[in-house]
Amino acid sequence: MGNEKTRVGIIGASGYGGIQLVRLLLEHPQVELTYLAGHSSAGKPYSDLYPHLTHRVNLTIEPIDLEAIADRCDAVFLGLPNGLACDMAPVLLAKGCKVLDLSADYRFRNLNTYTEWYKKDRQDQATNNQAVYGLPELYRDAIKDAQLIGCPGCYPTASLLALSPLLKQGFIVPETAIIDAKSGTSGGGREAKVNMLLAEAEGSLGAYGVAKHRHTPEIEQIASDLAGTELQVQFTPHLIPMVRGILATVYATLRDPGLVRDDLITIYSAFYRASPFVKILPHGVYPQTKWAWGTNLCYIGIEVDPRTGRVIVLSAIDNLVKGQAGQAVQCLNLMMGWEESLGLPQLAFYP
Amino acid sequence: MGNEKTRVGIIGASGYGGIQLVRLLLEHPQVELTYLAGHSSAGKPYSDLYPHLTHRVNLTIEPIDLEAIADRCDAVFLGLPNGLACDMAPVLLAKGCKVLDLSADYRFRNLNTYTEWYKKDRQDQATNNQAVYGLPELYRDAIKDAQLIGCPGCYPTASLLALSPLLKQGFIVPETAIIDAKSGTSGGGREAKVNMLLAEAEGSLGAYGVAKHRHTPEIEQIASDLAGTELQVQFTPHLIPMVRGILATVYATLRDPGLVRDDLITIYSAFYRASPFVKILPHGVYPQTKWAWGTNLCYIGIEVDPRTGRVIVLSAIDNLVKGQAGQAVQCLNLMMGWEESLGLPQLAFYP
Amino acid sequence: MGNEKTRVGIIGASGYGGIQLVRLLLEHPQVELTYLAGHSSAGKPYSDLYPHLTHRVNLTIEPIDLEAIADRCDAVFLGLPNGLACDMAPVLLAKGCKVLDLSADYRFRNLNTYTEWYKKDRQDQATNNQAVYGLPELYRDAIKDAQLIGCPGCYPTASLLALSPLLKQGFIVPETAIIDAKSGTSGGGREAKVNMLLAEAEGSLGAYGVAKHRHTPEIEQIASDLAGTELQVQFTPHLIPMVRGILATVYATLRDPGLVRDDLITIYSAFYRASPFVKILPHGVYPQTKWAWGTNLCYIGIEVDPRTGRVIVLSAIDNLVKGQAGQAVQCLNLMMGWEESLGLPQLAFYP
Amino acid sequence: MGNEKTRVGIIGASGYGGIQLVRLLLEHPQVELTYLAGHSSAGKPYSDLYPHLTHRVNLTIEPIDLEAIADRCDAVFLGLPNGLACDMAPVLLAKGCKVLDLSADYRFRNLNTYTEWYKKDRQDQATNNQAVYGLPELYRDAIKDAQLIGCPGCYPTASLLALSPLLKQGFIVPETAIIDAKSGTSGGGREAKVNMLLAEAEGSLGAYGVAKHRHTPEIEQIASDLAGTELQVQFTPHLIPMVRGILATVYATLRDPGLVRDDLITIYSAFYRASPFVKILPHGVYPQTKWAWGTNLCYIGIEVDPRTGRVIVLSAIDNLVKGQAGQAVQCLNLMMGWEESLGLPQLAFYP
Repeated sequence: MGNEKTRVGIIGASGYGGIQLVRLLLEHPQVELTYLAGHSSAGKPYSDLYPHLTHRVNLTIEPIDLEAIADRCDAVFLGLPNGLACDMAPVLLAKGCKVLDLSADYRFRNLNTYTEWYKKDRQDQATNNQAVYGLPELYRDAIKDAQLIGCPGCYPTASLLALSPLLKQGFIVPETAIIDAKSGTSGGGREAKVNMLLAEAEGSLGAYGVAKHRHTPEIEQIASDLAGTELQVQFTPHLIPMVRGILATVYATLRDPGLVRDDLITIYSAFYRASPFVKILPHGVYPQTKWAWGTNLCYIGIEVDPRTGRVIVLSAIDNLVKGQAGQAVQCLNLMMGWEESLGLPQLAFYP
Repeated sequence: MGNEKTRVGIIGASGYGGIQLVRLLLEHPQVELTYLAGHSSAGKPYSDLYPHLTHRVNLTIEPIDLEAIADRCDAVFLGLPNGLACDMAPVLLAKGCKVLDLSADYRFRNLNTYTEWYKKDRQDQATNNQAVYGLPELYRDAIKDAQLIGCPGCYPTASLLALSPLLKQGFIVPETAIIDAKSGTSGGGREAKVNMLLAEAEGSLGAYGVAKHRHTPEIEQIASDLAGTELQVQFTPHLIPMVRGILATVYATLRDPGLVRDDLITIYSAFYRASPFVKILPHGVYPQTKWAWGTNLCYIGIEVDPRTGRVIVLSAIDNLVKGQAGQAVQCLNLMMGWEESLGLPQLAFYP
Repeated sequence: MGNEKTRVGIIGASGYGGIQLVRLLLEHPQVELTYLAGHSSAGKPYSDLYPHLTHRVNLTIEPIDLEAIADRCDAVFLGLPNGLACDMAPVLLAKGCKVLDLSADYRFRNLNTYTEWYKKDRQDQATNNQAVYGLPELYRDAIKDAQLIGCPGCYPTASLLALSPLLKQGFIVPETAIIDAKSGTSGGGREAKVNMLLAEAEGSLGAYGVAKHRHTPEIEQIASDLAGTELQVQFTPHLIPMVRGILATVYATLRDPGLVRDDLITIYSAFYRASPFVKILPHGVYPQTKWAWGTNLCYIGIEVDPRTGRVIVLSAIDNLVKGQAGQAVQCLNLMMGWEESLGLPQLAFYP
Repeated sequence: MGNEKTRVGIIGASGYGGIQLVRLLLEHPQVELTYLAGHSSAGKPYSDLYPHLTHRVNLTIEPIDLEAIADRCDAVFLGLPNGLACDMAPVLLAKGCKVLDLSADYRFRNLNTYTEWYKKDRQDQATNNQAVYGLPELYRDAIKDAQLIGCPGCYPTASLLALSPLLKQGFIVPETAIIDAKSGTSGGGREAKVNMLLAEAEGSLGAYGVAKHRHTPEIEQIASDLAGTELQVQFTPHLIPMVRGILATVYATLRDPGLVRDDLITIYSAFYRASPFVKILPHGVYPQTKWAWGTNLCYIGIEVDPRTGRVIVLSAIDNLVKGQAGQAVQCLNLMMGWEESLGLPQLAFYP
C-alpha cells in the first residue's frame, strides 16, 4: 500500500450502495479505503453488518464527523437517504474533497424541481450549480473537471442510455416516449419493509409509483437537454422477484418510417463508440439482466416494428453497479484522470 | 359418482394446461373425468407424470382414439401443440361432443391470418366458422350456444380484459395502444428447453418475440372488433423469474383529456358488472400477480397521467388458470347452462 | 348464511397464520367468520391488509375484547406471538368457547419447559392441564373431547409425522434421530426483518438456531411420549429461498438391520391408514414440498440404506397449512364432530 | 499479450463448468486461452452460446482434435460428461500437456469403485496411478508435482472441507458422520431436463439420490484416507430453488464429550491456516451460501450440541467455483508454481 493511493471515504456505508462501493473500492488499484461513516451503526465493525467480509475489511464504522472525514479523505462518496447530502457536500467541498453523491440531492439543475418532488427546501444553489450529472456516457468531459457529482438514479441510467441516441439526433417524436422499467428488489435498499420480504415479493410482480415516481423528472431533465426542447416521458416502474438488475423497455414513434433496425444498430454503435461499458447487441438479440450482474455494463438491444412505426429499445444494467455504485466509481476515475474503466468489473458470472 | 354428471375428456393431459384441467375438473361438482389421452405418454398411469396426484387420480393415459373418446365423453378439452386440434375437432363435433380447444387453431376468424402466423394450411373453414372465441367477459352469449370454443391465449386474456372498456367505448386513440406484458415461465410449457431452466431464467429478466409474437394478431382481431375498426397494437412479452402469473401494463392516449382516474374506475366497474371474475381495484391500488395465483380472477388497476394524457391499465391473472384452463372451464360452464363460476377457485393462497 | 353455522373468531388475524385461517374458514361449509381481532390493526378493514380479498371479506378488524368475542363466537383461533394466548385462553374457556391456540403457549405439558425456552412465567397450570396437543394423527381421540388445543409448530408437525411410526414401534435407536429441516421464509411471519428481505434471502441458504431452536423441546416431548422413554433429538432448521413449504429429512439407525424399505413403507401405510392427510409414497419416490403447496397434506418418502443401517425419512408439508392453520382447522373439525377433512384443500396447484 | 503466458485449452467449454473456466481464465494474469473445443457446438462462435461475452471472447469452438490441442496448449481442462476424459487424458499427457479433468474419471484410486458406480470399464490404470485428487487444502504438495488432476465433485468439496479436521485428528466416531447437502440447480448442468425447469424447481425443495448418489464413494475414499480406516458416510443431496451454492450440514458424534465449540474453532483455524480460501467463522455465525457466490471461498461455521454430544459443521461454497472450475484453476496455479490464489475471486457481490 502506498502513499500515492487516493484516500477515499464513504458516508453511509451500511446499505446496499455502501457495500457495493466497499467491494469495488477494495479491488480498485488506485484507491485506499480510509473512512467508513454511518449514523445508526457507528462504532460497529463493518464485518458485523456483512460477516462475509470479515477476512478483507477490518474497518470500524465511525461517526459522521465531516472535519475528520475531510482530513482523511481525498474523495468522499455519500450513500445516504435523500435530503442529507445537501447539508454535507458544501462542507466537504470547502475543505477540498471531491464529492460523489449517490442520492437525488445534486441531480437537478433546477432546485424547485427537487423541492417539488422531494419535499425539502434547499439553500445551496451555489453548490448545486457546481454539480455535474454523473452519467459519463453523456457528460464525460464535464465530469472530468467536476468536484461534485450528482450520481444518477438506477432507473434514469437504464432509461437514458436507451433513449439518448434517439433524442440527441431527433429520430423520435419526443412525446411518444414510454419507459416500462423492471427492477429487482435490491433497489429498495437494506431496510426492513413488509412488501420487500421474500414471502411477499417472491413469485409475484407488480407496478408501483405509476405516473408519479420521482425518477420521472430526473429522466425528463436530461431527455429535454438532449432533445433541445422540454419534453415529458411516461415512466412506469415494476418490482420483479429477483435481487438485482433493471430492464428498461422503451417505446417511441420514429419520425422517419423508413428507418430500419440495422440503421439504428449502426447509429447506437457510433453514439457509444467511446463508451467502454455500453454494449450494443446484434440484431435479434435482446439483453437478459443477468448478463450485467455484478458488472458496470449496459447491454442494449434494438428492434423496429415496421407495422407500427415504433422503435423498441431494451436496456439492461445491474441496478447497484452501473445503476449506482459502479457508475460513481466510473465518475471518480474520470475526475482523477484515470482510465474510465479502472477497477470496474466487465465480466459477469453466468449463470 | 352419478350418471347425471357430464363426462369430460382431455386430449393432451400431460402438460401444464392438462394438469390444470385435471385438477379443476376433479373438484368440479358437475363433471366426471372419463378419458385422459396423450401420444407420447399413452399407457402410463397419470400419476407417473404427477406423483402428488397418486391419491386422487387413478386414470391411465390412453391413446388418442377419437372414436373411443367421443363414445365416452360429452365434452372434450384439447390441450395440444398448435396445428393438431384442427384435425381432431371436426371428428369430435360430428359425433356430438362439445369441444374446447386450448391451442391457437380456433382463435382466428380469418384462417389466412392463422396460416400466416402459424405456418399451417387449413381446410376446415366450415368448422372454423362455428368456433367462438372463449373470452366470456366479451362473448358470453355466443359461448352459451357454441359447440366449439377457441380458448384465448394467456397474453390476449390479460391484454383484452385491460383494453376492452377503452376500445368498446372509444375512449382512446386506438393506434396508441401499447401492451408491455410480463409472464412467469410456466407459459413455456412442460418441455425441456435450456432457456427455461431455473439456472438460466432465475434471477434474470428479458423480452422475447419483440414486434413479432404470435399473440399479436389474436389481440388485434378482438381489439378491432371492439373498436369497430382495424387497428394494430404494440405487444411486447417478457419472461419473469417466477412460475405463474401475467401482468399486462397497457398504455394508451385518451381522446378526452378531461377524463380522470375515478371516471375510468366507474366505467370499468360498470363494464364488468356481470363478470364475476374481474375485480376492479380502488384508486391507487395496483395488482400483484400473486393475488390471482391459482384462481380464475383478473385484477385490474387503473391510473391516468394528467401530465401526458395517457391511461395506464394494469391487469393481473394466473396464466394457467384465467389465462388457460380455468377460462376453458368457465366456457364449459356457460355451454352447459351452469353457473359461470361453478367449481372455479376465487380465493388465492397468500403469500 | 344460516344460524346453524358455527360462529368462529380469530384473534391475531393480520399475520400469515391469520390470513390462512381467514381463507380456509371462508371456504369451510360449516363455519361463519364473525370476529377478526387485532391490536395494532384494530379499526382497519381487513382488505386494507390484504387487498386481494376485498371482494370476499368485508369484516373490519376489531379490538381484542374478550367479552365481545366470547359472545359472538363458538370457537376462537388465537394467532398471536408467544406468551399472549395464555392470558386470554382461560377467559374464553370460562365463557364456553372452544379455543385453538397457534402459539407455543399450550404445547407443553410441563410448564417449566415452556418457561425455560420461552422466558415467561406461567400461572395457568390448571388451564394448561386441559390442553391437548393438536396433532390429529397422534391425538385424534383426545382432540375430539378437548376444549383447548395447543396447535403444533410447523417443524414439529413435519418432524413428528416422519418419526412417529419408528418411535412408537421401537424400530430405531432413539438417540440417533437427527432432523435436518428446511423451511420457506413465510415461517418467519409478516414482520419486517432485514434477513427476510427478498434481496437478502433470495439465492441463498443457511442454517439458524443450530442446537438451540425452540421447536426442539416440543419435538422431544412428543417423541418421548411415543418412545415411552425420555429422549433427545438433533434438530437443525434451515432457511430456503422460497415462500412456503417444509421438508424434514430425518435420519435414524435401525435396531433391526434386516428391515428393508418396503417393510417400512408397509408399516407407515398401516400407521397412517386412518389419517386422510398423510400420503406414503411408493418406493423410490421422494416428496417435493410443492406437492403439498396450499393443502393440508403431508407426503412421506422412505429409504433404507443397507450400507449404513440407517432409515432416511423425508416428509413434506405446507408450513402454513398442515404446519399451522390447516391443521388447526382439522382439529376444529374433530372437536365439532365433523368429518376430519371438511373444508380442507387436498389438491395442490402444480407447478 | 505475451509469449510468456501459459497457453490453456478447454475441452467441453459449452456447459456451466466451461463458461466458469472461460470467465476465470480471461481474468487470469498468467494465462492465455488458446483453444475451446467441443463436439456438438464445434464451428460456432463461443458468443453464440453466451452472447453476453461477445465483447470479450472471439474464439470459435473447434472440434476435439487432441493433436491440435496438444500443439497449441500447455495445459488442458476437460469439462466433459463422465467417461470421456479417460480416453483423452492419456494422449494429452503423452504429448506433454498438464491435464485437469473436471469429471469423475480420475477421482478414484481404485478403478473398480469407479466402474461399479459409473458403469464403465477402464483400461488406463497406469494413467490413473498418476492422478492426484485436486483438493488443494488436503493434497497441496502432491498437486504441485502432478501432471494429471482429478478435480473433486462439488458435494465432496463442501463435505470434505467440513469433515477433514475432525477425521484427520480422530475427534469423531467415524461411522456417525451424516452429510445433509443442499445445492442450487446449476449443479445439474446446462442440459434441458424437465425437473430442472424453473417452472418445476422454483418454489420447491426435495431430496434425490438418497443412499445412492455417486459422490458417496468419492467422499468415502478421501474420508477413509484421513481417518486411516475404511469408513462409510451417510450422504443425502437436496435440490434448492436457487442457481448457485452448496451448503453441507455435517453431523457427527464427538469422541470426547468435553470438547466445546471454541476448541473446535481453534482446531479448524489451525488446520486451514495455510489455506487462503477457507474461512472459519466466529462462534454463533453460520454461513450463507450467497457469501461465497462467484468466489473460490469456503465458509465454515461450527457448533457443538452439549445435549447430544454432536458436532454440527456448516460449510458453504459456490458449487461452480470452489466446487468446480475455480478449484481447478487453484490446482493449475499450484502445478505451475504460481501463487495459489492467483486470478481467483475472493470477494462476492452482495446481496
